[in-house]
Parts: sequence; C-alpha cells; structure tokens
Amino acid sequence: MIRRLCIIGVGLIGGSLARALRSRPSPFPVGEVVGAGRRIENLRKALDLGVIDRYETDIGCAVSGSDMVVLAVPLGAVETTLRLMRDRLAPDAVITDVGSAKRCIFDAAHAVFGEIPPRLVPGHPIAGTEKSGVEAAFAHLFEGRRVILTPPAEVESSALAQVEAMWRATGAEVVHMDATYHDTVLAATSHLPHVLAYALVDVLGGAEGSDELFRNAAGGLRDFTRIASSDPHMWCDICLFNADPIIGAIEQFQQELSQLKDAIHRKDGDALRSAFARAKDLRDRYLKLLG
Amino acid sequence: MIRRLCIIGVGLIGGSLARALRSRPSPFPVGEVVGAGRRIENLRKALDLGVIDRYETDIGCAVSGSDMVVLAVPLGAVETTLRLMRDRLAPDAVITDVGSAKRCIFDAAHAVFGEIPPRLVPGHPIAGTEKSGVEAAFAHLFEGRRVILTPPAEVESSALAQVEAMWRATGAEVVHMDATYHDTVLAATSHLPHVLAYALVDVLGGAEGSDELFRNAAGGLRDFTRIASSDPHMWCDICLFNADPIIGAIEQFQQELSQLKDAIHRKDGDALRSAFARAKDLRDRYLKLLG
Repeated sequence: MIRRLCIIGVGLIGGSLARALRSRPSPFPVGEVVGAGRRIENLRKALDLGVIDRYETDIGCAVSGSDMVVLAVPLGAVETTLRLMRDRLAPDAVITDVGSAKRCIFDAAHAVFGEIPPRLVPGHPIAGTEKSGVEAAFAHLFEGRRVILTPPAEVESSALAQVEAMWRATGAEVVHMDATYHDTVLAATSHLPHVLAYALVDVLGGAEGSDELFRNAAGGLRDFTRIASSDPHMWCDICLFNADPIIGAIEQFQQELSQLKDAIHRKDGDALRSAFARAKDLRDRYLKLLG
Repeated sequence: MIRRLCIIGVGLIGGSLARALRSRPSPFPVGEVVGAGRRIENLRKALDLGVIDRYETDIGCAVSGSDMVVLAVPLGAVETTLRLMRDRLAPDAVITDVGSAKRCIFDAAHAVFGEIPPRLVPGHPIAGTEKSGVEAAFAHLFEGRRVILTPPAEVESSALAQVEAMWRATGAEVVHMDATYHDTVLAATSHLPHVLAYALVDVLGGAEGSDELFRNAAGGLRDFTRIASSDPHMWCDICLFNADPIIGAIEQFQQELSQLKDAIHRKDGDALRSAFARAKDLRDRYLKLLG
C-alpha cells in the first residue's frame, strides 16, 4: 500500500492516476493523496473535483512524509522539481515519473543527487489524450494500456515492486525497458507522429485561404491531426529532452518521403503501389497486434 | 428523377451512392440501378446485397439506355471506361464521376471525345473510410458531407441540376469549385496526409523490431495511421493523376519539417513552442469549422 501519495503536477496523467487508484475497491490501498504544483487554481480545482485530498504549493512540504512521489510535470521541470524536493524526501520514499522520455530523467537525477537514487523508478504510461488539465482526467485512462518502467540497474527491488503494484492497480500492463531503447522506440511511434501532425497543420494553416482548406477536408484529416491539439509546451519539452532520437526518426522519415516524392515525379506506379501496399499490410497487422 | 442509373465500379463509394438513393422515401426517385465493373464476383455480391438491381460486365451494354452514368472507378481506369461507353451513351445521358482529382477527368474526356462533353459534370464526394469494396458501402456515408462539383464552363444546366439533385438526395451538401483549385486543395488536405501516413508506417515497418515498435505505440499512432489502411491501388492512381499539386504539397511540408528539425537541433524551445501552439490553435479552430 501507499500511506501518502504525492502527485506533483495534477493534470491529465497525474489526475487520472489519482482517480484510478481511488476509483474502485483496490487490492492496493492508498492513504492520503497530496497534490502539488505551481498553479493554485488548478490545485483547488483538483481538490473540488475530489481528485486529491489536499494540496501544497511548496514542493518540499508536499513530499515531506510521502512514501510515493510521482512527478507528472513537463520534462523541462523535472530537474528543478527534484532539486526542490531533495532535502525533504523521506529516506524510504520511492520516486517515479510519467515523462515521455527517460534518459533525461536519469540526467536530471544525476545532476541533482550526484548519483542515480536507488529508489528512483522512471516510468512512462503509454496513455493520454490530446486534452490536458485535471478536468480531462479520468479513472480508466490506463486500463489495458502499457506502462513502461526503465529502472536503473542498481534499483532497490522494493521500490520497483511498489511502482509496479501502483500501476497494476490502475489496470495497466507493466513492462520493463532500457531507457535508451525506450527513447528510440517512442521517438519513432509517438514523438515523430506528433511532429508530423504539428507540421502538417502549420503548413495548411499557413496556406492562402486556409479556412477554405479545412472546410473541404475529409474525416481523414481530422483523425490524422488529432494529436496536433496536444499541449504545445509539453511537446516542446519532449522535443528538447529527446532531441537526438527524434532527429534520427525525422531523418528516416524524410528519406522515405523523398523516395515517394521521386516515385510520383517519375510516375512510377509500381514503386508507389508496393510502398502503399506494404504500409497497408503493416497497419492491418499492427491493428491485430493491438488486439 | 433518374430512370436508369448506371454505376460503373460498385465499391465503397458507388455502392454507398446506390444505397443512399434507395434508402428512404426520396424526393428524387431512381428507377433501375445497373451495376457494371470488371469483377463479376463483386457485381454478384452487390446484387445479393440488394445494392443494384442487375449488372453488366460489358460497359457498353451497361450504359445503354441509362440517363445517369456514375464512374466510380480508380482514376487510372477513367479514360478506358469513357472510351468503352462512348458509342453506346444515350444522347441525353449525364456523366459524372467520384474521383479524388478533377483536372485528369477533363483530360480523359478530351482524349476520348475530342472535347469536353457538355453533359459531363465531374464530382468528388468528400467522404469515405479506409475500407473498400461493396461490403463496406452504407447509405449514410454522404450525410452532412460535402460533394464538390467541378462543372466545365460550357456545362448544360439540366445536366448540372440532375447531378446536384442526385447528391442532395443522399444528404450531402453540394458546392462548386474550379477543377484546378479542387486539385490543389485536396492535394493539401487529403492526398498529402495519405502520403505521410503511408510513409510513416513504411518507416516504422522497416525498422528493426517493428513488432515491438507497434506494440508500444499509443492510441495516437492508431488514429494517425488510419488512412494508411486505404486501398493502395486507388491511392497510387491519385498520386499519378494529381502529381504536380501533390509534389507541391509534399515540398511545402518538407520545408516545414526541416524547420522543425533545425529548431530541435539548435534546442530552440521558443520556435518549437510557437509552431506547436499555432498548430494547436489552427486545429482547434478547424474542429469548430467542421461543427
């Protein structure tokens, strides 16, 4: 069980975690839930919505006495937040996070603690929507989704077990992964698509008569660009803190796109058909993989 | 009214049109619906499903005696189909199509008829799903969607009125557009996103351990790549027959993507945040535009 859970950053993910852990008779009971963050209006809203039991705006006060601390802040705020909590953490406190890149969590921890704390278990729930804020939080967000943990080699097994149990209680499947591998995989499957969606919408929006463009768009564009409605600050941080894998993924994509453009230019129907057919097969197989 | 409607190519679009016109007490009655196409199994299926009243595999026989002929074949088959029907068309027959590019319809008609027939009204319903085939057809596909008509300057007004009435009877909103403008708009809002989705899935599928990639993908990728499950043959034709506008759209996109990549490379958070925020604002406005 968790006696006192401290969630720093009570937004979509942090709020949904709190809701999930409280939503049903759980084999993994949670005592008090303390919310922390910079925006007091948001914390008040979280309290009114019953997502948290109380809040603190001082990070040190918030973590004091907590046995589980979840960082659900943008990646750019992780190092500062760790620094603010460092001297007030209980010796048995477990620290985890929900960031979309994982190498940078180790970098931040190293900068603050001078080592990787053995009770730090970085994590990444592969769940979310394009919405943000505690109002968008809901208890079922993690059900049937993956949570990737990237524990350091020297992790304390009781800390790892505690974080695993917490996520399993939300209905998620927990897997382990090397942090560097995580960052490459997510750059390809999540960060690249977000950059592409943002880029496409910016191109369309920059065109003359863009209202007319959107007015004549089909449902395909609506789905394709859904992720471009995601929080720009969060995605800016992801691009900055997972820069190299994302640049690599963009470059692979640029190569593929150039090849398709060349095939269109030289009217090479065979090349286009086989590329499109390969993609269709892959996607149909991928749908099956997801069940 | 239409005495005899001939649908050449009874797939998702052609089949849904037939279903829509028959699905309810219509102010626009349709007599016989004749299906035509190359694949007899598909035509038999359409007959069994009640989508058409009878079928012909000979295009000449199919159009003979029809007062409305709808070409719902891939763009690459338009010219051949027009050629096969030319000598059997009734003098009062109206010809329309449902292709995703419109300049090429005029080119094909010119090649076959030596002029643009005044009873040709090219059209494009902005509707569809990633599925194909007559089994995927449904009566409500066009409800509330746009149908863009690109009539030639010399169009016969009775032919235009007939095509407009047919589409309105499906529940669609009919708008007129210049064919060249149509092709540029659709290249940006539909053709480019399809090429991007195909390219992304091909990149992911070509990567080492691609099953593992897909297994760790979030819902965002599922939506983002939905259109990559579209018919590869149809999309190959669209790329070939709307090549220049699509190449133009790809190049604008490449420029935008390069700028984002450069911003990531030089860790320019301001540039990224403002590009992402602009895209988010645009998409949120675009959702409102679509109601």
